[in-house]
Amino acid sequence: MATSAAHLNIGIIGAGRIGKVHAAHLARHVPRARLAVIADVSEEAARACAQENGVPRAVADHRAVLDDPGVDAVVVCSSTDTHARIVTETAQAGKHIFCEKPIDHDLAKIRRALDAVERAGVKLQIGFNRRFDANFARVRRAILDGEIGQPHLLHIISRDPAPPPISYIKVSGGLFLDMTIHDFDMARFLIGAEVEEVYTAAGVLVDPAIGAAGDLDTAVVVLEFANGVIGTIDNSRRAVYGYDQRVEVFGSAGGVRIDNNYPNTALISDAGSVRRDLPLNFFMDRYTESFLAEMRAFIDAVLDNTPTPVTGHDGLAPVVMGIAARKSYDEHRPVRLVEVLSQ
Amino acid sequence: MATSAAHLNIGIIGAGRIGKVHAAHLARHVPRARLAVIADVSEEAARACAQENGVPRAVADHRAVLDDPGVDAVVVCSSTDTHARIVTETAQAGKHIFCEKPIDHDLAKIRRALDAVERAGVKLQIGFNRRFDANFARVRRAILDGEIGQPHLLHIISRDPAPPPISYIKVSGGLFLDMTIHDFDMARFLIGAEVEEVYTAAGVLVDPAIGAAGDLDTAVVVLEFANGVIGTIDNSRRAVYGYDQRVEVFGSAGGVRIDNNYPNTALISDAGSVRRDLPLNFFMDRYTESFLAEMRAFIDAVLDNTPTPVTGHDGLAPVVMGIAARKSYDEHRPVRLVEVLSQ
Amino acid sequence: MATSAAHLNIGIIGAGRIGKVHAAHLARHVPRARLAVIADVSEEAARACAQENGVPRAVADHRAVLDDPGVDAVVVCSSTDTHARIVTETAQAGKHIFCEKPIDHDLAKIRRALDAVERAGVKLQIGFNRRFDANFARVRRAILDGEIGQPHLLHIISRDPAPPPISYIKVSGGLFLDMTIHDFDMARFLIGAEVEEVYTAAGVLVDPAIGAAGDLDTAVVVLEFANGVIGTIDNSRRAVYGYDQRVEVFGSAGGVRIDNNYPNTALISDAGSVRRDLPLNFFMDRYTESFLAEMRAFIDAVLDNTPTPVTGHDGLAPVVMGIAARKSYDEHRPVRLVEVLSQ
Amino acid sequence: MATSAAHLNIGIIGAGRIGKVHAAHLARHVPRARLAVIADVSEEAARACAQENGVPRAVADHRAVLDDPGVDAVVVCSSTDTHARIVTETAQAGKHIFCEKPIDHDLAKIRRALDAVERAGVKLQIGFNRRFDANFARVRRAILDGEIGQPHLLHIISRDPAPPPISYIKVSGGLFLDMTIHDFDMARFLIGAEVEEVYTAAGVLVDPAIGAAGDLDTAVVVLEFANGVIGTIDNSRRAVYGYDQRVEVFGSAGGVRIDNNYPNTALISDAGSVRRDLPLNFFMDRYTESFLAEMRAFIDAVLDNTPTPVTGHDGLAPVVMGIAARKSYDEHRPVRLVEVLSQ
Repeated sequence: MATSAAHLNIGIIGAGRIGKVHAAHLARHVPRARLAVIADVSEEAARACAQENGVPRAVADHRAVLDDPGVDAVVVCSSTDTHARIVTETAQAGKHIFCEKPIDHDLAKIRRALDAVERAGVKLQIGFNRRFDANFARVRRAILDGEIGQPHLLHIISRDPAPPPISYIKVSGGLFLDMTIHDFDMARFLIGAEVEEVYTAAGVLVDPAIGAAGDLDTAVVVLEFANGVIGTIDNSRRAVYGYDQRVEVFGSAGGVRIDNNYPNTALISDAGSVRRDLPLNFFMDRYTESFLAEMRAFIDAVLDNTPTPVTGHDGLAPVVMGIAARKSYDEHRPVRLVEVLSQ
Repeated sequence: MATSAAHLNIGIIGAGRIGKVHAAHLARHVPRARLAVIADVSEEAARACAQENGVPRAVADHRAVLDDPGVDAVVVCSSTDTHARIVTETAQAGKHIFCEKPIDHDLAKIRRALDAVERAGVKLQIGFNRRFDANFARVRRAILDGEIGQPHLLHIISRDPAPPPISYIKVSGGLFLDMTIHDFDMARFLIGAEVEEVYTAAGVLVDPAIGAAGDLDTAVVVLEFANGVIGTIDNSRRAVYGYDQRVEVFGSAGGVRIDNNYPNTALISDAGSVRRDLPLNFFMDRYTESFLAEMRAFIDAVLDNTPTPVTGHDGLAPVVMGIAARKSYDEHRPVRLVEVLSQ
Repeated sequence: MATSAAHLNIGIIGAGRIGKVHAAHLARHVPRARLAVIADVSEEAARACAQENGVPRAVADHRAVLDDPGVDAVVVCSSTDTHARIVTETAQAGKHIFCEKPIDHDLAKIRRALDAVERAGVKLQIGFNRRFDANFARVRRAILDGEIGQPHLLHIISRDPAPPPISYIKVSGGLFLDMTIHDFDMARFLIGAEVEEVYTAAGVLVDPAIGAAGDLDTAVVVLEFANGVIGTIDNSRRAVYGYDQRVEVFGSAGGVRIDNNYPNTALISDAGSVRRDLPLNFFMDRYTESFLAEMRAFIDAVLDNTPTPVTGHDGLAPVVMGIAARKSYDEHRPVRLVEVLSQ
Repeated sequence: MATSAAHLNIGIIGAGRIGKVHAAHLARHVPRARLAVIADVSEEAARACAQENGVPRAVADHRAVLDDPGVDAVVVCSSTDTHARIVTETAQAGKHIFCEKPIDHDLAKIRRALDAVERAGVKLQIGFNRRFDANFARVRRAILDGEIGQPHLLHIISRDPAPPPISYIKVSGGLFLDMTIHDFDMARFLIGAEVEEVYTAAGVLVDPAIGAAGDLDTAVVVLEFANGVIGTIDNSRRAVYGYDQRVEVFGSAGGVRIDNNYPNTALISDAGSVRRDLPLNFFMDRYTESFLAEMRAFIDAVLDNTPTPVTGHDGLAPVVMGIAARKSYDEHRPVRLVEVLSQ
């Protein structure tokens, strides 16, 4: 496996929404990458994506990607239930891996996949793209640069514009593993420490059908970090004004907070109010550049043989937190993460 | 006791910092009030305050105020440990009462004082001035007017510019009864429902001396309301950038949030940043107008024989919440308020 | 004339809207002032104002104020057409003067009044209250402290919520002497230099009746300062969203701008927009504190024998600019101020 | 010339900074375009650009582009002094034209080029990209949708982060034709009416060397529109805090203003100030998306046979305004545009 080459040859497994985004980015905006092959269980989807991006080969069976000696690294964009297995197989094929989150909802499966990665000695990056967003990255930098001193309090607001279909809710793994998982990762990323305990207060306030499906749509999760920081995550499945993604960190020497992104800066004053247009409503618009940045970071990490910025452990930890958050809600008590880990 | 008069004759008990503020407001900016007498254990302080505000009488013994037939209502600004007793005595003297918060830290004492008020049939208003602040009042109005639909989530940020002296900390009743008590009241005021359960995560991150005194300086309190709303309060004893008092309510049809107040609106761009001056740093500057507005509301309620806007129950409930918040921290579990009430 | 006293004894001439504001401020919030007498052509108005503010004497004839040996200084709030005469008489009576703007619209009359003041050796302050507003004062301070380097460009936005009645327009002296006069003063105050030339582009866009009355309702005035700064003033008689008073100064090391003042900081997001309430709509609400601050500054200047912060020359210069601005519009060319001064 | 095809075949003339931007956009983000050939006087530059973007042909002589029967439209990115000539030649070759601004600084040359375009019946679009920026476009939409009623006043702030080299200043055509020309276009675009008269106040405040080169670096230009709107443009060659591009339009029913674009939304509060990072500093970062949007609009206009959104007249008018603005400064008087047009 030659990674000292000027380019990294990439295979993509999964040509759905996110797979197409990664394909377009790799084809057009990541000069160090070369797209070699695209696989999708729908060979037609694979072919369409390959043609759109000038990729020479399209296949239905992802094993063809793993067997391709011209492929150095694989971007796993298949359905979540296949992630752990494909990660394991890709590692065994000796290829580097970029895997969309979550690796899985089952801790044992995740651990087996991470073990395979470790044994193979390949690189693995998990697709927590928000870490690469300019706003969140600026918060992290403020902390690293000491602009706010020692962090004391964290508050994450993360609300979707609208809930997914009930059919999706049922297989999503639940609010904490489907939606809050991003915020769990963000909390760890921003504070730079592990969470030791969570406490969840939650309910069904948006849509009773979500409750009927066994899930929650509104939640607050309290996080206690190993370094003493106390965090709160505030989730809702429906913010009528758009995608609401904000964060505030308060520290001994100051505080930093970020606002949403807006389609324009226009402020309109009329006889009724001073107003602006709603924030960006769709996660692909809101996080466009972060998807590109995470992919560039992965290519660089492999070619330059540096650690990937989002590791396998970073893929595991938020799943533990998600399971603990649900357990806290179910048992109506604070839950330490070691309880989940030792199960 | 004639309250049908055009003016309400007022006695003030306590001529300390807040007593002087109320005296000046009543003397200069509340046309329906007449200041008749000022009492302070330091007769000199009483005299100085009386002279400053053109008040005809100054006394050392607060009983002289209660015995004064020309006094219709009493503003209780004495030290907290005397509140419950003076409220009781004032009620027994048949005079209306404005009492600074908290009534007491002891539930039994508060109940006895409220009983006395009820038996006497006098009016009682508690000094939760922040309800009268233009920003908080606007949030309440947004909710009442349906601008954000049904409330789902509440987040209160309440941070002091600097901790009080350790000597004060020791007698303060602790973070939750001294500082968070305002936020407990604000939570009930904004949401318009009772809190049923609290959960506290807290620590000593600002100053170890505060911990040595048995208190906390950084806290998150989760509130579960009877109507399903989930709230968080985020406290710190020291925000280096000033007095940080913000709130956000999120609901089914939108959200509302308020920012701090600033000394001016100037935005300065130079080669380093785009910046503005720090927010107002002192609670007297920040809440000046609310102190006046609460006093006007009290005078109006008595003269017009309408309910006071902050009742005796409003004085009791935040103390219950404060006790429960500490209990939650001590016992490391969610605590229902009925546990505290039934003790 | 004894000004070494601890208090300054004040007579107010004119108990209309602004006179009542000054009376209330002097009575309640300026400890170094004592209100001795209030005069108004309507003796009833004088008496009401005196009673409201605990002033011992009320008269109809302003000469009684000037003849009162117990009066040290006079606040002139009578109608504009009487300002110059009363200033002259007050100076001749050896009393200090605070005079509402403008002194007059006639340069010769202003000069005669200023001559009288100079001969009498009394102090004179003109009521350009906006200089004392926290926002404008912060801009001035940014310039004085070098926060933006050498000023290069100035932009003043000054728009009223609604035009005055046509009957007032007819006697107002016209847009430039009635409304822009404040902005002319602000321009000189902020930049700290004299204007040498003006150019006016203007029209009637708000209400044809204003044009029929011979006046303008929308204007841009370009200012060229002696120190090279170029300024623009942008006026309208009607901003439907409220009182619009903003300024921006751009310099070699940065820029500073101020926004309007708002009744609260609430930001409401709903399915349509992110919005806030309109800015303060009435000049008395917007500039409340500046009226008090200017009066304190006047009392201090007299008692401490320091220069008043807004001099007679400061009262003259904006009138010159207003006349030049109209001349520029009428003659459709840039007009140097020396042209007006030498007429 | 077949424009009914699914794709438009494009030749680019000029592979400098802006040519490379257009090439990358056309190659990667404009599906209806096909890049056929790139020309540059440096054949090496042409080849590098062609290779970077997968373009099959690179030439040194732009005539080869015009003679290429496989080219439907030409994007003219050569040096300004060649624009008019190449536009003429391209029109004569029967190909559609996208031409970077300005067409020329000489009115006669522009007119001859536009005549050639008209005779040939080809489409021409001028590269005023800012019209396609989300912020400016939102202001235009607010006006078109009646959100602010009839426009009355316009204020454009347009300041560069730093002046270009003096060597460039000397051949730039001067401030008004090099820099203000964008603002002249923006003024016409936003108000949707023609300017009839300009008045200029300007100076050399940034760098005496700019004055020594016969140019100005700081200017205010007053615009009087045919529909009564009065506008101001406020230019500086150096804003130390970054690229400053804002606009405000005030109308009978409200106002709209846009702020700069920032690299992130982070607000940092520390013991000194509340601050954010500087706005985007480089025009390519600030206007990235508008360059792409204008190119898409051109391709669409040609393929769909609709009018281009920025016409040849739109290329001429700002040059007239720039010449008039300089004439106003030189002659120190307002200048009507017809004076320049009739010269």
